[in-house]
Amino acid sequence: MLLKNSPAGIENRGSPDEPLRQRLFTPGPTPIPERVQAAMAGTPVYHRGPEFPALLRNAVQGLQEVFPTSYDVFLLSCSGTGVMEAAVANTLCAGDRALVVQAGQFGARWTDLCRAYGVEVVEREFPWGEAVDPQVVAEALRDDPGLRVVFATQSETSTGVLHDVASIGEIVSETGTLLVVDGVSSVAAHPLPLEAWNVDLAVTASQKGLMLPPGMGMAAVGPRVWKAHGRSRLPKFYWDLEGYRRSLAEGRAPATLPVTLMAGLRAALQMLREEGIPQVWERHARHARAVRRSAAALGLTSFARQPSNALTAILLPGGVDGLALMEYMRRERGVVVGGGLGDYRGRMVRVSNLGHVDDAGILEAVSALEIGLRETGWKFEAGAGVKAAQCVLKVSG
Amino acid sequence: MLLKNSPAGIENRGSPDEPLRQRLFTPGPTPIPERVQAAMAGTPVYHRGPEFPALLRNAVQGLQEVFPTSYDVFLLSCSGTGVMEAAVANTLCAGDRALVVQAGQFGARWTDLCRAYGVEVVEREFPWGEAVDPQVVAEALRDDPGLRVVFATQSETSTGVLHDVASIGEIVSETGTLLVVDGVSSVAAHPLPLEAWNVDLAVTASQKGLMLPPGMGMAAVGPRVWKAHGRSRLPKFYWDLEGYRRSLAEGRAPATLPVTLMAGLRAALQMLREEGIPQVWERHARHARAVRRSAAALGLTSFARQPSNALTAILLPGGVDGLALMEYMRRERGVVVGGGLGDYRGRMVRVSNLGHVDDAGILEAVSALEIGLRETGWKFEAGAGVKAAQCVLKVSG
Repeated sequence: MLLKNSPAGIENRGSPDEPLRQRLFTPGPTPIPERVQAAMAGTPVYHRGPEFPALLRNAVQGLQEVFPTSYDVFLLSCSGTGVMEAAVANTLCAGDRALVVQAGQFGARWTDLCRAYGVEVVEREFPWGEAVDPQVVAEALRDDPGLRVVFATQSETSTGVLHDVASIGEIVSETGTLLVVDGVSSVAAHPLPLEAWNVDLAVTASQKGLMLPPGMGMAAVGPRVWKAHGRSRLPKFYWDLEGYRRSLAEGRAPATLPVTLMAGLRAALQMLREEGIPQVWERHARHARAVRRSAAALGLTSFARQPSNALTAILLPGGVDGLALMEYMRRERGVVVGGGLGDYRGRMVRVSNLGHVDDAGILEAVSALEIGLRETGWKFEAGAGVKAAQCVLKVSG
Repeated sequence: MLLKNSPAGIENRGSPDEPLRQRLFTPGPTPIPERVQAAMAGTPVYHRGPEFPALLRNAVQGLQEVFPTSYDVFLLSCSGTGVMEAAVANTLCAGDRALVVQAGQFGARWTDLCRAYGVEVVEREFPWGEAVDPQVVAEALRDDPGLRVVFATQSETSTGVLHDVASIGEIVSETGTLLVVDGVSSVAAHPLPLEAWNVDLAVTASQKGLMLPPGMGMAAVGPRVWKAHGRSRLPKFYWDLEGYRRSLAEGRAPATLPVTLMAGLRAALQMLREEGIPQVWERHARHARAVRRSAAALGLTSFARQPSNALTAILLPGGVDGLALMEYMRRERGVVVGGGLGDYRGRMVRVSNLGHVDDAGILEAVSALEIGLRETGWKFEAGAGVKAAQCVLKVSG
């Protein structure tokens, strides 16, 4: 029997007294570990008080380990889109030309942001599901050496594709052009070594691999960005990284930073260090592989040619209603996954293993997917998906 | 004996096992109620999932009660400065002229924001501690009818002054100029009725009277703002309220909103409703009066001519080192207050009663202030401050 149990009257299979616990397998927000919850439950640190500098230092150092990079890292009170906007506003002038290479909804956001600021965009768009061909970057830069910045995406959250930032960086390194990378859903799932890959500025956000609630954007900023900042004439105050740097040098926070998220970040970084950053990347690889193998075993297609380890976009067969599938998984199993965006609404599920997910969680998600698929009419060998995941995770014989 | 007890090596009088609990009497962040903590500890609501619309609706309706207003309210993932920037970016063009009336650090931020966007600022500055004279607004608008927007502050957090927004609004209402008000530290401490006072756009933030961690800015937006938006040419994407409105109309969140803070807000709004919004305003008035009376009984001067009910800025006598006083209060009593900003650093304490503060808290703060003053060399009748506060709070005979 279906009961109304949430304040919003959302139905799920739990009772009103004990609603079914929700498990997030969404590519942001991701589940919050208990240790992080506990760290955030304390009295907020006063951003003008004596504890603040050490809290900020801990965050910066930890994030440097996670990217990894030795560049300065700035924390901003905003979502991923906000810190992407900061990357545009700090590097360009109106009328400048920038290259955006993209193959999905979040890659296209670079174009929207640049155009909102009057930056002329040279766009190289690839079909959803495909990865950007780095050679196209080389050609675009050869055709137009005046391109000031290349904007790219590491993990495209709308398609589950991993773009080859290392190769793009190698190409861009031969020019005077800056490389700015959206690492929102990739950081902590994949390495994003800024110096080694010639990335000048990379952004990420709290509610993804860093296991925090949404509300904090982070930017790792290399030395060439400061030069670009010097000639940039785009208006900025809240996003002004030079003003931020000046505030810190004067011993002041640049604005009220999200101190509660920063306390959570301290705990999250500690957890990542204890597991080991390379081991965290490896876990994401193993979990993503388990989901992909499950999808294949169920006769479904992984959408991404070159898949990200943060999430798996699964294209649904013609007969399956993706919205009904997701609703069933959520209501009956408490398993929340992402749906298809744009044209893929109702035709795709995006199962995320990003952040605080363990082997049991992966089996839970795959099991809910199986049950949901069966209920929405898809035929397959019962248990095939879970079996395939178990095999990757080595939890059965 | 002083022991190092915090991760940052910050000293306070607690033991390493049981550090002294910190009590915030800072004008943001303010203490977080347990009910709010509990609400935020749950699994984040997926901003693309079925619970989200009701969560957003609840937030908007509750904030409309708190301002109060019937205008649309927008939640943004940012600090107070961020939502102030949104107010500028949505109403103006580069080269437009705007009037800023200010008397403190946060009022001056309107000037900085406008100038960062190329808006020509006509500034009417009053000395710190004084309130803006509304007649000056009338004169400025008479002198320059081309002023597009008047930017004002309700509660100036750097001085503890309450500016007379109602009178400013009456004057502005006779012109075609917009009125934009910073209600960051006033909302929930004072009414800010937008329609009655002719305020077109008012902003506030989560970590003040709304009893939440920092990270969410809110803007209440009246109909004349949309007209101004139509002609505004300042670049914006993240701050674009028209884009936000369009996203909502299409059933999408405009970006990843801070869903955890929104869950906390639901609980905080419920608490405010249970107490009654007018009763919340009255509590802030009573608590601020108690702090002011205490300061007077200790022979100290309240800095603000026209004081805000959110906080009390207390000017310290020549012999008292404000930084030592604050450090003593924090370390020995766990009481954290704000210090003087700008030229008043070391010469002022700012005791906030904003947000989740009860009578016992006020006595705690005043008692810590007394003990600290005694330790830093100020002479007064022992207990005089607490006695004065008790008298206002009617907790003694």
